[in-house]
Amino acid sequence: MKKAIKGQILSAERMDKIRVIENGYLVYEDGIITDVTDTLDDPDIEVKDYGNRLIVQAMSDMHLHAPQEPMVGLGLNLPLIEWLNTYTFPTEANFKDPAFAEKAFNKLCDELLASGVTRVAIFSSMHREATELLMKIMEKKGLSGLVGKVNMDRNGGENLEETTEESIRETEKWLSDTLGKYEHITPVITPRFTPSCTNELMEYLGKTAKEHGLYVQSHLSENQNEIAWVHELHPDTTQYWESYDKYGLFGDHTLMGHCVWSDERERKAMRDRGVYVVHCPTSNTNLMSGIAPVRQMLTEGNKVLLGSDIGAGSDISGFEVVRDAIQASKNRKILDDFKTEPLSVEEAWYLATSAPQEYFGEKPGFSPGNELHAVVINDDQMNDPWTLTPVERLERAIYRRQPGAVEAVHVRDFVPVRA
Amino acid sequence: MKKAIKGQILSAERMDKIRVIENGYLVYEDGIITDVTDTLDDPDIEVKDYGNRLIVQAMSDMHLHAPQEPMVGLGLNLPLIEWLNTYTFPTEANFKDPAFAEKAFNKLCDELLASGVTRVAIFSSMHREATELLMKIMEKKGLSGLVGKVNMDRNGGENLEETTEESIRETEKWLSDTLGKYEHITPVITPRFTPSCTNELMEYLGKTAKEHGLYVQSHLSENQNEIAWVHELHPDTTQYWESYDKYGLFGDHTLMGHCVWSDERERKAMRDRGVYVVHCPTSNTNLMSGIAPVRQMLTEGNKVLLGSDIGAGSDISGFEVVRDAIQASKNRKILDDFKTEPLSVEEAWYLATSAPQEYFGEKPGFSPGNELHAVVINDDQMNDPWTLTPVERLERAIYRRQPGAVEAVHVRDFVPVRA
Repeated sequence: MKKAIKGQILSAERMDKIRVIENGYLVYEDGIITDVTDTLDDPDIEVKDYGNRLIVQAMSDMHLHAPQEPMVGLGLNLPLIEWLNTYTFPTEANFKDPAFAEKAFNKLCDELLASGVTRVAIFSSMHREATELLMKIMEKKGLSGLVGKVNMDRNGGENLEETTEESIRETEKWLSDTLGKYEHITPVITPRFTPSCTNELMEYLGKTAKEHGLYVQSHLSENQNEIAWVHELHPDTTQYWESYDKYGLFGDHTLMGHCVWSDERERKAMRDRGVYVVHCPTSNTNLMSGIAPVRQMLTEGNKVLLGSDIGAGSDISGFEVVRDAIQASKNRKILDDFKTEPLSVEEAWYLATSAPQEYFGEKPGFSPGNELHAVVINDDQMNDPWTLTPVERLERAIYRRQPGAVEAVHVRDFVPVRA
Repeated sequence: MKKAIKGQILSAERMDKIRVIENGYLVYEDGIITDVTDTLDDPDIEVKDYGNRLIVQAMSDMHLHAPQEPMVGLGLNLPLIEWLNTYTFPTEANFKDPAFAEKAFNKLCDELLASGVTRVAIFSSMHREATELLMKIMEKKGLSGLVGKVNMDRNGGENLEETTEESIRETEKWLSDTLGKYEHITPVITPRFTPSCTNELMEYLGKTAKEHGLYVQSHLSENQNEIAWVHELHPDTTQYWESYDKYGLFGDHTLMGHCVWSDERERKAMRDRGVYVVHCPTSNTNLMSGIAPVRQMLTEGNKVLLGSDIGAGSDISGFEVVRDAIQASKNRKILDDFKTEPLSVEEAWYLATSAPQEYFGEKPGFSPGNELHAVVINDDQMNDPWTLTPVERLERAIYRRQPGAVEAVHVRDFVPVRA
């Protein structure tokens, strides 16, 4: 049976322009969008009328670490490697305990949904049980996307390291437990990053991704010390990406977090192989990694998505990540001696919504055929300086959040958040 | 009668270290702190026990524009001068209407207090009635500090400009209405910025500040086009600050917002004259003004405070401004080829709390003799990775806010915010 939600609809169909359907209807059937229209002919369609509220696409967070939820906002004056050893690895070691994991995952999923994020590509810890729990919680709560059991058989410290044999055995078991099990959650092959995985493990992971047709996610060129370390570990390579590429872990739909220091050659390799950059602006500032040249990546044709990178990122809310991406692009402009253009609201919004939709095989905007993933924004509590356009109201929602601003979140036929 | 509040007390007595008094008592009488102790001898003291909550100093927002409340988060892809003409001046023109003003000021004051800010140095609009209303609302709600009627007799556009005569007449009336009227609110002489004020008006403002012993607030060296404009307007000066200095508007306790591009000579002039830099990190990013060299200012001995700079800044919460200051210092490190050190949590927290206390004539930290301005932070809803220190908990409160995190705000004997 067809249903519709009605309001001021913003559909990010192009990167440079958001299409506005005022007092529009977003019509869907069995969770799939069938029409976006300003007139509804069929009187049998059940309409949920949100009045003057904005109805916008839900966002996707394409790089974050679920087991870092309990450490968001801690230890952020340390650079990457020191921060990993002092805060991250000890925190993740806690996820051996499913009770600890359950509490953290529930909180994280609730905060993501309440902030308008409905799809993710997420790192779990190395623990199989916790990873399976995360998938179960996500599916139940209405979050979709990719979940990876992290693989790490070296350099994890005392309490967060697998042997190569354990890593392979646990990955096999995890895949046999979860492949095809969930309607909306798919496993993703997840070497933590090159320094965490022996060549033997990398080889296994590359073969396994190929065997099951699974996507890959990892980290690339986040920090200069990290890049130097990778080069020491793989003296046969000239660039970081090659340490993945030689094991078949750098191909179509691979998600690479950060890419702050990826140069022209590395960016070209990404384009040639269909690898996606996942830009994590907040994290890159917090850990002083650098400012990724996103404008340049877009101009050259790289595919760019956004990630909160919890817990090096400290903003869980999708709106905050969009704002952080705009602000990072402005700081990049300053770094580039004011020569590069910052991201516009429209562009950053596209990267958080339509770009990941395309990654997941959908069309941009609220296009017929896409799953319904929508956020209803209530800005009644705001004082307007004059009558604002719907796009101005979206800009304000990105920059200035109010309690209760996310009035509802629709995911297919499910409404996981409602005021 | 003496009273006390009890909890995990954090007192920023030094810039490099926060003193922690675990299960401590903050004792006060008639709104003035008399003791900070971990043992309470006097059984007659009435204790409000906040248990394991953090009790921290309230913050001060030392540069913001009250009439820009309705435009927070709008038009932020424009640089300073264009943004002023397109968004700011038309918004401020609305404040001719006291009903419009009342709504905006109430919302702003409520949000400041709810986010832990109790003292401000604030720009009103040029409208006398609205300015007097702002002072009244602030005093009633428990906000203290400095309020300025903005003076602007040129370059304000059609609806936001006074004649010189009007500006002087309205300022005289405003001062006669409000000088000595409020217990906790003092007028501050406020030329908007050099391009907004004729020489005649500047001369009047300098004399008036001197006559009444009032402090001055304005803007300095925010943006390179602005600096060039000031130089055109005052060809007899070599640097921006001289356009204030020659009228006696650049002296002890003068607050100068931004100072992004102030060089060694301008910074030295500030030190020599007792002028304070008010660093506005969020605004400087949003309007792509630049990244102020705060580390260098502190090393050289400049006095630095923090401001949200609402509406070019988009974060009203004091905690967010502290975070933004840390993040800006990290971006500055990147801009400086990784050679300058970022602000630590302790340093940024000091700039938001003890530094403005010193500006207002108090001692740093929760020192006896200071007014009680305290924020009670509830982080019960958080998952801890292990038992955190009180300073780690403060860091997390700065980076990651939760609904209800500010459980109470104490201002002298008044509790304007309580859960």
